[in-house]
Amino acid sequence: MEKVCLIGAGSTKYGKLEDSITDIALQASVDAIESAGIGPKEIQAGYISNVFGIADKQVHLGPVIMSNLGIPEVPSLSIESACGSGSISFREAYANVAAGFYDAVLATGVEKVTHTGTEWTTTYFSYCSDFFYEGGAGASFPGLFASMARAYLAEYKATEEDLAMVAVKNHDNGLLNPKAHLRKKITIDDVMKSAVVASPLKLYDCCPFSDGASAVIICSEKFAKAHTKNYVEVIGSGRGGSPAALQGRDHITTIPSTRIAAQAAYKMAGVTPKDIDFAEVHDCFTIAELVDTEDLGFFEQGKAVQAVREGRTKLNGDISINPSGGLKSKGHPIGATGIGQVAEVFDQLTGKAGERTVKDAKIGLTHNFGATGASCAVHIFKSV
Amino acid sequence: MEKVCLIGAGSTKYGKLEDSITDIALQASVDAIESAGIGPKEIQAGYISNVFGIADKQVHLGPVIMSNLGIPEVPSLSIESACGSGSISFREAYANVAAGFYDAVLATGVEKVTHTGTEWTTTYFSYCSDFFYEGGAGASFPGLFASMARAYLAEYKATEEDLAMVAVKNHDNGLLNPKAHLRKKITIDDVMKSAVVASPLKLYDCCPFSDGASAVIICSEKFAKAHTKNYVEVIGSGRGGSPAALQGRDHITTIPSTRIAAQAAYKMAGVTPKDIDFAEVHDCFTIAELVDTEDLGFFEQGKAVQAVREGRTKLNGDISINPSGGLKSKGHPIGATGIGQVAEVFDQLTGKAGERTVKDAKIGLTHNFGATGASCAVHIFKSV
Repeated sequence: MEKVCLIGAGSTKYGKLEDSITDIALQASVDAIESAGIGPKEIQAGYISNVFGIADKQVHLGPVIMSNLGIPEVPSLSIESACGSGSISFREAYANVAAGFYDAVLATGVEKVTHTGTEWTTTYFSYCSDFFYEGGAGASFPGLFASMARAYLAEYKATEEDLAMVAVKNHDNGLLNPKAHLRKKITIDDVMKSAVVASPLKLYDCCPFSDGASAVIICSEKFAKAHTKNYVEVIGSGRGGSPAALQGRDHITTIPSTRIAAQAAYKMAGVTPKDIDFAEVHDCFTIAELVDTEDLGFFEQGKAVQAVREGRTKLNGDISINPSGGLKSKGHPIGATGIGQVAEVFDQLTGKAGERTVKDAKIGLTHNFGATGASCAVHIFKSV
Repeated sequence: MEKVCLIGAGSTKYGKLEDSITDIALQASVDAIESAGIGPKEIQAGYISNVFGIADKQVHLGPVIMSNLGIPEVPSLSIESACGSGSISFREAYANVAAGFYDAVLATGVEKVTHTGTEWTTTYFSYCSDFFYEGGAGASFPGLFASMARAYLAEYKATEEDLAMVAVKNHDNGLLNPKAHLRKKITIDDVMKSAVVASPLKLYDCCPFSDGASAVIICSEKFAKAHTKNYVEVIGSGRGGSPAALQGRDHITTIPSTRIAAQAAYKMAGVTPKDIDFAEVHDCFTIAELVDTEDLGFFEQGKAVQAVREGRTKLNGDISINPSGGLKSKGHPIGATGIGQVAEVFDQLTGKAGERTVKDAKIGLTHNFGATGASCAVHIFKSV
């Protein structure tokens, strides 16, 4: 296996964007290519992550992006795994470079949905659940995560205010991220007074629907060394699955796919959770961040809530969780999110994260899942 | 690199199916697993190819399929590359097994669209073109392939009757395939008298909209040998791209991605077009089969039409093209088609093709592209 590295990353702003899905994918791709200091012709394959291209009337995005980059002959494909599409596409790009099939590839994640309105988006997103048992029975994602939250609050004697603290922290981080969707300081009181979406989750417990694109350049160590001294190494990669419907799981305060993926990634990297300096985790709802950070082994089960109360997951706390602002504040363009997390790690480990820099960070982790965690990938990165 | 093999294949009938997208994907998957003589628990990853899961309200198909197979913890993903999704998903599965990431994986392709009606399907399929230049300007796929046909007929002095002969041949083959969508003997006269869709293409020059699923089990040579003596080896794999919109190409009587993919696959396999005993090629319209068989090197440019006139591409002619009936007669459930081609090769090379068996065949090729060939993958297989 070849060592696999990152040498460039780019992102659009996340939020409500006016440009077409193709244009925002291209903006992020060009950003990543320029950040890597290479030309498009050095790219040997394109990995696109996207879920609802149909919302902007363009699926089969790969060839359109490659053609617009001036490299139409380069093979490309699209990968979908609901909200986990980005990390699972990244994994395929990683695997192909590790195996030596390609020296350098472009992984671009993109989503454009806000123009369709909340009803379309909520309805179509529910097709990512196990629709027979969940979406089709009226359980959309806020409801499913609310079930998890209810179980967690009861099991670990946590409160709605505890959930709110996750949102407040991530908004604090997002304020420092010029590309974040929701750049707005909020208080626990703001969260508690926001409209109930699916009790106990309120509006400010939920990430927004976002448009956006992120892209990274993934390459062999040899290619990286030939182009730059400021690169990042991918040291661990793991994937896992869970029963697609929540009802098929023994417990709903833990996500099996996260545990399986994390175990594989830690093993490959030869590190433990204690070695991780910061992590971008899948906080589609505040409850998810608590569950994630336990499943990733940062805290014992039921103890993440105490860590949040003590501020240990704040920027430059014991372990910085979601320094970018996370899905909650940075935003959640579903096909782009997993790639955006990797872009954040690249920026953090190459000194490009500005005010939100995690001090002295050497090892970062990304965690991104689809639906209620039916699919998941975890990656671990090290500065060189 | 590990040698990569096929040890099982399964398919639903192609056509207008009543079961849900999940159910038909499961039927093909279970068929493939049983055909391989393994249990689901031996599968380490799932590669799903699908384009319009939204038509049946289920995207994020991987975890739903894995969960229903009783292996929810196994990682899965969906790959989309328009009508080429199946072969490009197969390529990712191949690459991961070749690299040693997995010993055995399931690749399942599925599509369920006929219940949406022709208007929905034609509209949504056009999102697979370069929508800004093509679909959005009114050029749906019949129109785009009609442009290719007009150019080909003019350039090589071919006739509409020549195109019709491709349809007649593929229907003859499909009659021998119990799982084909259009099992109906047709004559040149039938084709010529059928309704004009986009001149010079008439209804019988066009493949149907189909529902269906196909699945194959892809594994290392070691895994194959431990389970069966009747397996097939994957000896060549290539991918390529073309300018997404037809207008971006220098010539429209050849498809660049096919040539790039074929060259790579032949090189890896160490064979030439003359070594291929039969090929499943992408005949979404009759014109495509002529162009494909030239781009694949079976005939010189402009000479495929002469070969068809002489019956050289018929079942057990010089080179059997589309012994399954092809997209034209077997049908074209777009996410499944590329996997269905591989399933046909498996059946042919393991003595399971019944009346449509290509005699003494040792080497088969699959060729499957997306849109007007913006994306393409070619694979070459050998009996052991």
